[in-house]
Amino acid sequence: MRNLDENTITQAVLARLEHATDERLKDIVTSLVRHLHAFAREVNLTEAEWEQGIQFLTGVGHFTDDKRQEFILLSDTLGLSTLVTAMANRKPLGCTEATVFGPFFVEGAPEYQNGDDVANGARGEPCFVSGFIRGLGGEPVAGARIEVWQADADGFYDVQHAGDDAHRARGVLHSLANGRYHFRSIVAEPYPIPHDGPVGRMLDALGRHPWRPAHLHFMITAPGYERLVTHVFRDGDKYLDSDAVFGVRSSLVAQWIPHEEGVAPDGTRMNTPFSTLEFDFILNRSS
Amino acid sequence: MRNLDENTITQAVLARLEHATDERLKDIVTSLVRHLHAFAREVNLTEAEWEQGIQFLTGVGHFTDDKRQEFILLSDTLGLSTLVTAMANRKPLGCTEATVFGPFFVEGAPEYQNGDDVANGARGEPCFVSGFIRGLGGEPVAGARIEVWQADADGFYDVQHAGDDAHRARGVLHSLANGRYHFRSIVAEPYPIPHDGPVGRMLDALGRHPWRPAHLHFMITAPGYERLVTHVFRDGDKYLDSDAVFGVRSSLVAQWIPHEEGVAPDGTRMNTPFSTLEFDFILNRSS
Ligand SMILES: [Fe+2]
Ligand SMILES: [Fe+2]
Repeated sequence: MRNLDENTITQAVLARLEHATDERLKDIVTSLVRHLHAFAREVNLTEAEWEQGIQFLTGVGHFTDDKRQEFILLSDTLGLSTLVTAMANRKPLGCTEATVFGPFFVEGAPEYQNGDDVANGARGEPCFVSGFIRGLGGEPVAGARIEVWQADADGFYDVQHAGDDAHRARGVLHSLANGRYHFRSIVAEPYPIPHDGPVGRMLDALGRHPWRPAHLHFMITAPGYERLVTHVFRDGDKYLDSDAVFGVRSSLVAQWIPHEEGVAPDGTRMNTPFSTLEFDFILNRSS
Repeated sequence: MRNLDENTITQAVLARLEHATDERLKDIVTSLVRHLHAFAREVNLTEAEWEQGIQFLTGVGHFTDDKRQEFILLSDTLGLSTLVTAMANRKPLGCTEATVFGPFFVEGAPEYQNGDDVANGARGEPCFVSGFIRGLGGEPVAGARIEVWQADADGFYDVQHAGDDAHRARGVLHSLANGRYHFRSIVAEPYPIPHDGPVGRMLDALGRHPWRPAHLHFMITAPGYERLVTHVFRDGDKYLDSDAVFGVRSSLVAQWIPHEEGVAPDGTRMNTPFSTLEFDFILNRSS
C-alpha cells in the first residue's frame, strides 16, 4: 500500500474492498474499477484530459434537475441504456421487443377510456391508434394497463413546455375483453433530445446529431406477464438509422397511414386529414 | 442500426463516431464506450442497478460546487487519480515521486519569505520545515517556487472552515541560492476526506474508512525542471497503509521529530514543544 504506481494501483484499490459485506456491490465495484483503470491505461489518459472529464461530469451534474436528467441522456447517447435494457429483456422470439425508457416519462398521467383523445390539446395532426394485446400463445390479454406518451408536432413533450403542468399527449387506458385497445392522439414527429447542455456539446464534438426518429412510447403491464416498455417507430423517418439514443428495432417500425378527411376507424367524422396506426403487442409470460 | 441488441450495440455506438474529426477525442470515446459496455456486460447490470448508478451520479453532481468537488473525491477514492498521476509522472529513479493533487489547492495563496510562519493563525503544534531543492545530478535549484498547503490540528483546510476567506496553513516561497528552503508551520494531522456526501456513503457501503494519513502538500516549479506535485507523509501515522485516496509512496514518508521547548533550528526561542521536519526534493529536468 505504500508503493503504489501505475502497475499496482488497481490491485490496491480492489484489496481495499476486503471488508465489503454486500457481495453484489463488491462485484460491481470490482468490475467498474478494473474497467475504469483499463480505459485510462489504454488511452494513456493525461492529467489535462482527466481534468476535462471532471469538468464535463460536473457540468452534467449541474444541468440535472427535477425536469432534466442529463446523466440519463449521457447513458442513452453512449448506448449504455440500450445495453442494459437488452440484457434485462431477453424474451422468446415472437414477443414484442423492449427498448429504452427515456427521460420523458411522468408519473400521474390521466386515465382514459378506449376511444378517448389523449392529446388533451397537444398540437399535431390527428392520429387514431389501435391494436391488440396478446400473449405469446395468441391469447388475448384483457385489462392490460397501457400507458402511452409522445412528443407533439413541435417535437416537445408536455414537460418540456413552460406554462401549466397539464398532461398532454400522454395517458393510461386498459385493453378490452378481446385484448383490443384504441385511442386518438396526434401524429408522432422526430425530435432532438435536449442538446443545450454538456451532452449536446459532446454529440457536437463527436460529429453526431441529437435527433430521434418519430415514435410513440408504450409501457404495458398485465398480471401474469412481464412488463413491456417499448416504442413504436414511424416508418419512413429519416432518423431510423441514426437514432441518437440507439432505440430503434426493426420489429418496432410501423406504418402511419395517411387519410384524407372522412370517417375515422372509430366512426368519428373528420373534416381534416388524419392518420391511422395499428400495432399489436405480444407480452411474455412472467416466470 | 435497426436491429440493435446486447451483442451489436457496442459496434453500433462506435460506428456512430464516423464523422468525428478530433482523432484523440474519438480514441478516448471509443475506449470509454468499450470499457463501459464491457463493465455492464460483465456484471449483467440490472435496470434497477443502472437506476441506482444514475441516482448516485446525480447526487455527486449536486454535491459539487465552488468549494466541494465530489467528482474529484470519487476519482481519488477509486484510485483513478493515482493512476493518471503515475502515468503522467514517469520519472527517472532518484527523482521525488509525484502523488495526487487533491481537492484542497486554492489559487492566490500568499507569498512568504524563508523563515516565515505560513500557519497565519491555523491551529496546531508549531513545526519547522526545511530542506533542499536539487536536480537529479545533485545541483542546487535556486529560486524554485514552492507552494505548500496543509490541514490544521482539527483536520480541516482553511477553505473548509466557515467564516473569513483568509489563507491559513498555505503559502508560496522560493528556494535560496544554495537550493535551501525553510519555513514555520504547524504539525500535519490525519483527516477524513469530506464524507457527508455520496462518496462518503459509497465508502461506508464498501466497508472503507475516509481517512488520510497526515501530510503536507507541495507543488514545486522551476525553469528547466518538470513541475512536481507531491505530499510529504508523516511516519508512524496509522493510516499510512490505508490512505482513502491511495496517495502514499514509501519514498515520501518522513520523520516529524518532536522537541521540548527550547531553541528552534532557525534560532527562534520556543516556550512550547515543537516539531521539525527535513525533506529534500529532487526535480526531473524537463525535456
Ligand atoms: Fe421519446
Ligand atoms: Fe490533503
